Amino acid sequence: MTSTVPSSVDPKALQSVLDGRWAHVRRDARENLDDPDFLPVYGETMQEARERVTRAARKLAESGRVGLGFPKAYGGQDDAGGSTTSIEMLAFGDLSLMVKAGVQWGLFGGALQLLGTKRQHDKYLRDVMSFDLPGCFAMTETGHGSDVQQLRTTCTYDPATETFDLHTPHQAARKDYIGNAAKDGRMAVVFAQLITQGKNHGVHAWLVPIRDEQGNAMPGVTIGDDGPKAGLPGVDNGRLTFDHVSVPRDMLLDRYGQVAADGTYTSSIENETRRFFTMLGTLVRGRVSVGGSASSATKLALDIATRYGDARRQFAAPGEEREIVINDYLVHQRKLLPALATTYALHFAQDELVATMHDVQTAAHVDGKVLDEDAQRELESRAAGLKVAQTAHATRTIQMCREACGGAGYLQENRLPHLKADTDVFTTFEGDNTVLLQLVAKGLLTGYRDTFGSLEGWGKVGFIADMVRETVLERTAARALIARLIDAVPGRDDEVPMLDRGWQLKMFEFREKHALEGAIRRLRKNSTTEGMAPFDMFNDVQDHVLKTAQTHIDRVVLEAFVAGVDRTEDAGAQALMDKVCDLYALSTIEADKAWFLEHGQLTPSRAKTLTSTVNQLLRELRPHIITLVDAFAIPAEWKAAKILEEEPGRQEAMAARDAEVRAEAEGSQASGESATDLEVAPAQ
Amino acid sequence: MTSTVPSSVDPKALQSVLDGRWAHVRRDARENLDDPDFLPVYGETMQEARERVTRAARKLAESGRVGLGFPKAYGGQDDAGGSTTSIEMLAFGDLSLMVKAGVQWGLFGGALQLLGTKRQHDKYLRDVMSFDLPGCFAMTETGHGSDVQQLRTTCTYDPATETFDLHTPHQAARKDYIGNAAKDGRMAVVFAQLITQGKNHGVHAWLVPIRDEQGNAMPGVTIGDDGPKAGLPGVDNGRLTFDHVSVPRDMLLDRYGQVAADGTYTSSIENETRRFFTMLGTLVRGRVSVGGSASSATKLALDIATRYGDARRQFAAPGEEREIVINDYLVHQRKLLPALATTYALHFAQDELVATMHDVQTAAHVDGKVLDEDAQRELESRAAGLKVAQTAHATRTIQMCREACGGAGYLQENRLPHLKADTDVFTTFEGDNTVLLQLVAKGLLTGYRDTFGSLEGWGKVGFIADMVRETVLERTAARALIARLIDAVPGRDDEVPMLDRGWQLKMFEFREKHALEGAIRRLRKNSTTEGMAPFDMFNDVQDHVLKTAQTHIDRVVLEAFVAGVDRTEDAGAQALMDKVCDLYALSTIEADKAWFLEHGQLTPSRAKTLTSTVNQLLRELRPHIITLVDAFAIPAEWKAAKILEEEPGRQEAMAARDAEVRAEAEGSQASGESATDLEVAPAQ
Repeated sequence: MTSTVPSSVDPKALQSVLDGRWAHVRRDARENLDDPDFLPVYGETMQEARERVTRAARKLAESGRVGLGFPKAYGGQDDAGGSTTSIEMLAFGDLSLMVKAGVQWGLFGGALQLLGTKRQHDKYLRDVMSFDLPGCFAMTETGHGSDVQQLRTTCTYDPATETFDLHTPHQAARKDYIGNAAKDGRMAVVFAQLITQGKNHGVHAWLVPIRDEQGNAMPGVTIGDDGPKAGLPGVDNGRLTFDHVSVPRDMLLDRYGQVAADGTYTSSIENETRRFFTMLGTLVRGRVSVGGSASSATKLALDIATRYGDARRQFAAPGEEREIVINDYLVHQRKLLPALATTYALHFAQDELVATMHDVQTAAHVDGKVLDEDAQRELESRAAGLKVAQTAHATRTIQMCREACGGAGYLQENRLPHLKADTDVFTTFEGDNTVLLQLVAKGLLTGYRDTFGSLEGWGKVGFIADMVRETVLERTAARALIARLIDAVPGRDDEVPMLDRGWQLKMFEFREKHALEGAIRRLRKNSTTEGMAPFDMFNDVQDHVLKTAQTHIDRVVLEAFVAGVDRTEDAGAQALMDKVCDLYALSTIEADKAWFLEHGQLTPSRAKTLTSTVNQLLRELRPHIITLVDAFAIPAEWKAAKILEEEPGRQEAMAARDAEVRAEAEGSQASGESATDLEVAPAQ
Repeated sequence: MTSTVPSSVDPKALQSVLDGRWAHVRRDARENLDDPDFLPVYGETMQEARERVTRAARKLAESGRVGLGFPKAYGGQDDAGGSTTSIEMLAFGDLSLMVKAGVQWGLFGGALQLLGTKRQHDKYLRDVMSFDLPGCFAMTETGHGSDVQQLRTTCTYDPATETFDLHTPHQAARKDYIGNAAKDGRMAVVFAQLITQGKNHGVHAWLVPIRDEQGNAMPGVTIGDDGPKAGLPGVDNGRLTFDHVSVPRDMLLDRYGQVAADGTYTSSIENETRRFFTMLGTLVRGRVSVGGSASSATKLALDIATRYGDARRQFAAPGEEREIVINDYLVHQRKLLPALATTYALHFAQDELVATMHDVQTAAHVDGKVLDEDAQRELESRAAGLKVAQTAHATRTIQMCREACGGAGYLQENRLPHLKADTDVFTTFEGDNTVLLQLVAKGLLTGYRDTFGSLEGWGKVGFIADMVRETVLERTAARALIARLIDAVPGRDDEVPMLDRGWQLKMFEFREKHALEGAIRRLRKNSTTEGMAPFDMFNDVQDHVLKTAQTHIDRVVLEAFVAGVDRTEDAGAQALMDKVCDLYALSTIEADKAWFLEHGQLTPSRAKTLTSTVNQLLRELRPHIITLVDAFAIPAEWKAAKILEEEPGRQEAMAARDAEVRAEAEGSQASGESATDLEVAPAQ
């Protein structure tokens, strides 16, 4: 499969593969999203940031760019994929604006659209789209971040008044971290336990006015301010407490559950848990957007650090004419290039996810068909997994980029501090990453359970390896291609060249299957252990279970990348991406080398070959490092990083310095040990 | 060695071991450093932060607490160790103040003290101590962060006027990131190339006034502002450019190099490179302080996250009376406990470093003896290595703590965002960590070179393993104890219990020795490879060389911890620390499991035992987790984290919730799959 990479590859050819199905949305953003109000402003106060971002949100609404995901009947375009792609592009700008937009049109508008019904759409949707009705998505409670099913806020129906009574029973049940709440929100979608006729029907959502036209809190509503955060200063997060607030019956978002005037509860979905997950599942778009946005911020950070590393000189190379820049150092390449390769891999996985989401949601909502429950489950698991992968990668990579730029990376004028601080919450909002990994694992185990029994009764679970294989593996878009590559792996595993794509795929697949089988075996054993409490049965294996989820995500990502390389038409671009894909695969295996050694998939000598193969790939990719960031096609005016601006006279100064360095290198080798004298400066 | 940990250990007993030799300095800080101005203020503007911190610095000066490290003759206490311990304590407060103090009294004052001579001390030292003369340490240049020897600023002597001409030749040579420069500094210690009689004598330092009494820049001095940063808003970092500034001859800090009126250069140290490193070496205190401060911030973050995790409930445990808090989850323990163990280990290593520094500097400076060059080199290498270890650990751990607190961890009111943002620069200032690792590696290789030849001539280097062993290993305080433990390891390595301290030490030692030998072998091979440029010879092995440094640091840290456990007198405290030491050793081996497998030190089955042994240690340490943070003895009023404050009525609300949960667990198991239904909320 591997062919030689030409010495120069056209970044435009790479870009067109990356741009993919919603290239038109990306192009439109690059050409038209050029308002300085959409960029972060360094050194703003929280107040200033909030005001600017509110202003920017209005402008964004006016541009019409926020309606992509809404129904055509209300001026939207029924384009779910376009809508998340559009958010992804917005994330190259001020992330406060991206989050504010995500709250208004993704979460608040999305809940109204997907949990509400026509009369509610008619009444509110246009005002939501125009930002004339700024709103909140009030789900999380101070005491219940991750366990939505156990929310403590109640909403109790009274047939006498035909209203609900919305109430916060104690402080731990207050709604917290709610975007748009502290300053702008006039309405909120509030999640609470629906109680009618003395029975709790589980969590539902209501439209609840929280401020009047003058901006005063409505009666019974107490609004708090979460104050300054690590980042996202332009998002007005706040707290909402409800003291027996009266909510009219028709404000219940009643697509999946209705309460009649007399208090009779009806729903098309009988099982309360299934209903709950169906309602929550419609909101998957938020998670998809967070993952995509994390990747945009990662690309920008890599763009900045990579270009800086290509200009920055660290130490004089003794006795050489060559200009050594920090990108020439092996250890610097080890920081940047595997991160770039992973970013490419995640891009293709995200692309596949967005397309799947678009197709599932279009099938369900536009054509009015019943939701395909299996497809929806699959989608949610994939969205959760990729949200984890992309946000964890963002946190790691942006941190690395900031450090790779040294002192310059610590100055706000160079953008990286904002990228770091703003994205930092991504790993824990829209689902805490650890909890989401558990969700992914549960999906894998559930597939298994469906065949053999219930998750409660581990004792009943039989163990047949091939069934696991089927359940887990028949899932990505490029299955046929992958199977062909794996089948073509020649000879014994420990003799196959490591650049064989089939071998790489086989390693990822083996690890996932083996991890899953092991987790099942251990869970089963615990379930038959006398006296072990249910919590301990699970907790004892928690690290193993999360590992299983991680290996699953890695496999899905690699397969998406392989499919992306396969569909690349330009030969040069394909050859380069093929090498980047090698680096992703091998550096992922290298990062988990212990597992492969422990499970007999790598011999010690092959493990050493792995390290040198990765180093060889770094050497081969080094000349293309700028092309790889060029292909992200981030407009220069979006970057807002001073270190990327050519200072007046910088070229000349550099030339002068180089001349000096050369003169010294020739003239005085007196200082003796400069080659390895890597002494360093205290700074402050 | 291991005895049973009693069910309850007195945190005071642990604390007294941790407090160590400078316990009186710690006690004084805990009791008297209680000014609210010394704590971070959330939501301040940069301007407000700078003003408050300047005010706080003055108060600190008035308290007399800043003089510990200065000579008694000027009102100090000649207590180098006390001075770094005092900075370490200050780092529990606002880190902007710690850095500001570090700049004024550590870097600026330290350079004056250690590079200057009596007439300069007489003239300036008291004003520096009182903050009447705020100053800068102007070393780093925009274009030369790490390569101090290649600084471009020049200072050229003219015997006609008996002045130096200080000049910035181009923008890349401007002094950058300089603390105290943007607002307060009136004088700077400026590092530049000393040129006299047409010859460059290398980097020296001068006292240069940069502002007059009115705060205006002195003629020829241009002062810029680095503006807002990721953190440390109270430190006024700036840029200094010199346009042929005239500096009187007696402003040269001339302890190590003098220029006579006629321009004749003299120095007690002939070799320019040796002189340079001697001068730089005196400034080691800064690096020691940064490492210690990073550890203080880490302790505080762990204190907050650990207490939060002990109160926070995540999901209801189905069918159980038990209250499950997030610290009960295995994966949460895997985050907090190894980080706590490493923090303990680093504490003891830092303690040892501070004592060594104190003794070396006291011997050199107070007794007026000549510096013991070997001891000084050793000290610098140790300081560099521990600075890397502590700052990298801080960056990782504070990030983890922020995530472990979810949304609450993202709010400034809970302190973690400040800890993260303020410490973030620690990995790259006072020496970039990657460059410092290289310095450590060089120290190891140099020890080798001293025996066999020069670093330039790798070809000449012979290879005798035992000599390496001697050079590298005979270095930590507790050598005899360590040797005894290692010698006592019974039987074959793969049969020894993993909790055997001797086996753990042996593994650390073997890894270091093997890594170093391998690096030497590869460097030697490259040096005999035809046509390989010097840069490539080194660069090819850079990852291996840095790995060597890392393994060396790990070994030093473990040995310090072992010595610390050994000198603990309280039996309960000793038993607990012994277990924490096991966790540090085994989780460090686990993190590098691939290496041990690859090099035949772990069999696959022993690698699995390692994982389960670590998990077993987590279970055993879980009940003591609060004791472990209690022992840091951080005064409650320093923590400034809202989540640690008991809200009014919180206890009752919690009790009410627990009752609800129990009622539900008993009443309705209707929802079916709650045990593993770990679904999560979108948030914003």
